Amino acid sequence: MPKLHWEDFKPGQVTEYGPRLVTRDEIIAFATEFDPQPMHLDEAAGRASLLKGLAASGWHSCCILIRMICDGFLLNSASMGANAIDEVKWLSPLRPGDSVTLRATVRETRASKSRPDMGLIHFHYEMMSQNGECIMTLDTPMMMGRRSPGAAS
Amino acid sequence: MPKLHWEDFKPGQVTEYGPRLVTRDEIIAFATEFDPQPMHLDEAAGRASLLKGLAASGWHSCCILIRMICDGFLLNSASMGANAIDEVKWLSPLRPGDSVTLRATVRETRASKSRPDMGLIHFHYEMMSQNGECIMTLDTPMMMGRRSPGAAS
Repeated sequence: MPKLHWEDFKPGQVTEYGPRLVTRDEIIAFATEFDPQPMHLDEAAGRASLLKGLAASGWHSCCILIRMICDGFLLNSASMGANAIDEVKWLSPLRPGDSVTLRATVRETRASKSRPDMGLIHFHYEMMSQNGECIMTLDTPMMMGRRSPGAAS
Repeated sequence: MPKLHWEDFKPGQVTEYGPRLVTRDEIIAFATEFDPQPMHLDEAAGRASLLKGLAASGWHSCCILIRMICDGFLLNSASMGANAIDEVKWLSPLRPGDSVTLRATVRETRASKSRPDMGLIHFHYEMMSQNGECIMTLDTPMMMGRRSPGAAS
């Protein structure tokens, strides 16, 4: 598959990635390292929390999303990284045993004003559970190399 | 130290946490698991990128920040979690060997309209390097238990 460049992403384009199984062990391992709040470590503490049961740290959900993007297209692209997240919403708990899919929607693309070799792509990501629930959304602008560097547009 | 509640956080309050050393091994371990883009794994690829050298995934910076918050105050608080990130800006690279500090500023607090036992605290976090450079900022609203549940205000 040819390497993806800025020109390959069009507003309105929707792509799906996954599914990916999320295990109890990895939820607890992540929380132990980065977000050791009781509701991410222990079933009883989870039940007593707003999450109503053991659930992954929202930051773990973000990291799983990024890995799904990497495997889905980013590692086969002219990605130049990102310098911001516009917004994240954690909408429903990510539970042990969930199998998640990712829907990536291109919201907007534009050429960089300062760098003719670069374009920007605004993505809206939705992580969905096997039950069709939206676990989280994430909006972020990505910097991507242009196949045909041109003037700012 | 008594457990922190919503009433203990006042707009304008600034608290610092850290320092915390970030090693090359942990940068590469995180990237290998969650964000295996070459500039987070390899010195030469990092030099060829906008980061101008090996640097941590921005998501790793977020996870380090969350762990510093957990250790700094969250695990000794009536935290009820968070359901959103309003914004993240990655401003300068987080390098192997950097020793980072975290500045937490309370931007706004308000009682929950729906839950008398809960309040909201809007935090602005700045992660600084040992050289005084701002590596990232993160804005997020946190849900926190009230010491004295009351009517919405």
